[in-house]
Amino acid sequence: MPEDHQPALIESFRQPAATPDRLRRQIEFIVEVDRLKTVLRQSPLLAADRRENDAEHSWHLALMVLVLAEYADEPVDVRKVLALVLLHDLIEIHAGDTPLYDEAGQLDQEEREKAAADKLFALLPAGQAEEFRALWDEFEARLTPEARFAKAMDRLQPLLLNFGNRGGTWQTPGVTDQVVLDRKSVIGDSSTALWEYAQALIRTGADNGWVPKAG
Amino acid sequence: MPEDHQPALIESFRQPAATPDRLRRQIEFIVEVDRLKTVLRQSPLLAADRRENDAEHSWHLALMVLVLAEYADEPVDVRKVLALVLLHDLIEIHAGDTPLYDEAGQLDQEEREKAAADKLFALLPAGQAEEFRALWDEFEARLTPEARFAKAMDRLQPLLLNFGNRGGTWQTPGVTDQVVLDRKSVIGDSSTALWEYAQALIRTGADNGWVPKAG
Repeated sequence: MPEDHQPALIESFRQPAATPDRLRRQIEFIVEVDRLKTVLRQSPLLAADRRENDAEHSWHLALMVLVLAEYADEPVDVRKVLALVLLHDLIEIHAGDTPLYDEAGQLDQEEREKAAADKLFALLPAGQAEEFRALWDEFEARLTPEARFAKAMDRLQPLLLNFGNRGGTWQTPGVTDQVVLDRKSVIGDSSTALWEYAQALIRTGADNGWVPKAG
Repeated sequence: MPEDHQPALIESFRQPAATPDRLRRQIEFIVEVDRLKTVLRQSPLLAADRRENDAEHSWHLALMVLVLAEYADEPVDVRKVLALVLLHDLIEIHAGDTPLYDEAGQLDQEEREKAAADKLFALLPAGQAEEFRALWDEFEARLTPEARFAKAMDRLQPLLLNFGNRGGTWQTPGVTDQVVLDRKSVIGDSSTALWEYAQALIRTGADNGWVPKAG
């Protein structure tokens, strides 16, 4: 399991003495989350031969929300969906990325991620800390239309990267088209049209030999 | 000047035959903008010893909007500000990054960037193409409270990176504390509190020798 040994970035960021306390804490949070740019995911980029990091991934999801919100089956508050996708991976600064096809890593994933959320959002001033933590909890619980659409974007984006790379993480040992369909089916909880599109991508990938067919 | 010789990513992304035309164009746009992850800025990260890319930068700005929107002097529509910062650098996929302290590059910057916007947003279906182009124009024109706050974030974020790096692009030949103050003063068009904070960072940086003092 990933462990967290990095010193806080804010320790070398000495803010001007006159900074009001609330703003000081907000800037500390903004400085600290720079680390999201160093958390690597498994997925390869389309535009370069390297793995994507969590900050790039989060930006791409937010852009997809702007383009694709019209496909949500239930009306969504776009501002809320944007906040959910911008924040959803921050806890990986402490908990690390747990790949979708890593079953061992998923055993203690929830526990690790909750501890990371406790630590990270506590940097913010009172009120805002609770607000951001509630957004992260909402994303995880998937009980609102906004959280379901945010999750759909989180599952659709790496599918685009794998399809464009003719395999990508579909080549992980043990993964078949049926495993991918199972893991991606939550897209259908939010958008019938995007789930149809996602299934077509997976079927085409299997027909082309980019992901093994089950059985 | 940067030139644009890269083939379109979408050429190797053959979408399933049954994809509706509108969705097909939206996915083309989403695939193509993966290239923003490869456009390097001058600013060094806080969390690693490498330069930041435009996708990471855009994500960081959006997160700052969520944390700092309360400091806008005029009320802002947060959804709009988020859209502005998520989209504002897309044209650099074709036009390249023009550093803030590169006076030669700024001579034809506007022309290059408008041509890039024409090319990029035309990938989207009718309606959405015009909507996104209007958002980019709004950011550039800085005539609305949302555009002024988005611009303030765009100027404040690299200031944080330079301060945390004890110099960063402040070490560019010809740059002094007065040059930095001049380039960053647009922050004050949107937020009195954040402009006070930015000035304190620049003064502290000059006192510490991270940026030369003028004169």
